[in-house]
Amino acid sequence: MNLALLFDEDFVDSDRALLRGRRLEHLKTVLKSATGHRIAVGRVNGAMGYGEVLRLTDTEAELQVTLGQPAPTPLPLTLILAMPRPKMLRRTLQTCASLGVKDIWLINSYKVEKSFWQTPWLSEENLRENLTLGLEQSKDTLMPKVHIRKLFKPFVEDELPALLSGKRALVAHPGTAIPCPTHLNEPAALCIGPEGGFTDYEVRKLEEAGCQSVHLGPRILRVETAVPVLVSRLFDACL
Amino acid sequence: MNLALLFDEDFVDSDRALLRGRRLEHLKTVLKSATGHRIAVGRVNGAMGYGEVLRLTDTEAELQVTLGQPAPTPLPLTLILAMPRPKMLRRTLQTCASLGVKDIWLINSYKVEKSFWQTPWLSEENLRENLTLGLEQSKDTLMPKVHIRKLFKPFVEDELPALLSGKRALVAHPGTAIPCPTHLNEPAALCIGPEGGFTDYEVRKLEEAGCQSVHLGPRILRVETAVPVLVSRLFDACL
Repeated sequence: MNLALLFDEDFVDSDRALLRGRRLEHLKTVLKSATGHRIAVGRVNGAMGYGEVLRLTDTEAELQVTLGQPAPTPLPLTLILAMPRPKMLRRTLQTCASLGVKDIWLINSYKVEKSFWQTPWLSEENLRENLTLGLEQSKDTLMPKVHIRKLFKPFVEDELPALLSGKRALVAHPGTAIPCPTHLNEPAALCIGPEGGFTDYEVRKLEEAGCQSVHLGPRILRVETAVPVLVSRLFDACL
Repeated sequence: MNLALLFDEDFVDSDRALLRGRRLEHLKTVLKSATGHRIAVGRVNGAMGYGEVLRLTDTEAELQVTLGQPAPTPLPLTLILAMPRPKMLRRTLQTCASLGVKDIWLINSYKVEKSFWQTPWLSEENLRENLTLGLEQSKDTLMPKVHIRKLFKPFVEDELPALLSGKRALVAHPGTAIPCPTHLNEPAALCIGPEGGFTDYEVRKLEEAGCQSVHLGPRILRVETAVPVLVSRLFDACL
């Protein structure tokens, strides 16, 4: 936690907030803060700054909050992921949030196991918690939006074309001839398949919706590694 | 497992090998292989190809092995990491192996907790197992070398200068003025600090040994995310 992210419900006054639970624990055991210390804070979807510890008890810390710095620039990327297996989903959400990805679509694909959709990590509370961990790691306040689409065909036919409008649209597809581009100066949309990849039918549907198939080289990467590799490759100027 | 990595001890003849344990389990439950099927295999530090299943029992699978393809090109990178916390070490080793990093140095730093060095993940067997998982993910056979240096100063003063010779040497240091370069056409060495970063003293010592301090932008990334971001940024032509 390089920054404590403060939510509306944490504020007891316009410039005072209470920390409890995980963030209080971190304040005490890792930062070893005491009254008078300053820690980095940010208001969700707002500015960043610092919080001065006014009061520290077993159950809460009261902070005097001073905000002023803007959050880092978001990546101009729409990331469309075949639903990863649950333990990878959790890490991938944290990674996306820490990299500055703000628009995440979790979609179905033939090789996504049905059971993946049952995971508690998809609850609103758990999504927010994992995205918060990523934002707190990288010092950002802008909460990514996660969209869940459990049917491939209606998503690709009815929603995707509009979503890709005005963007450089790509699907990562091992074995295709064109390498993934670098240094984009435009918004992009990137589709990443499940373990084992999108099927040929799915790639064709994504191409019909406007995506170009590109490869990342001979190596097959797990989604949690492919995301930072692709983001860094597409937008190295933004990082 | 996109390729089964075969070790010398797996071979019962020059072109026949036995799979047991984790790889046998994968063959049966994920690949659902049967006699006559072909699976992708590679010989550690050797060529890649396929294995035809000759015989499949509860305890082993016998493969007729045909090799011929070379492994993907290694990254010309020496990666010097402050020892990560154990659960991150495990994932970071897998990530490094899957990205094609072949030369990994785990070093001490002021902010590395002493207890990290006690982890069983540093045993030779566990290092090999985690590197194998990364190679099997990305279809590679060249086993990375891991060097362990538990004293910072002797490593930086006595070994590092020779290690950096002929390489572009960098230390990732948030807050410095120069951004990390892209598209290197030369071998590189990259130092990545612990959570909380290298101390000013340590950065000075690394600079004295020949490293240039560079930053990755305003975001602070975990080591397991920083590695793919940096590798992709430095060597996008090689991926």
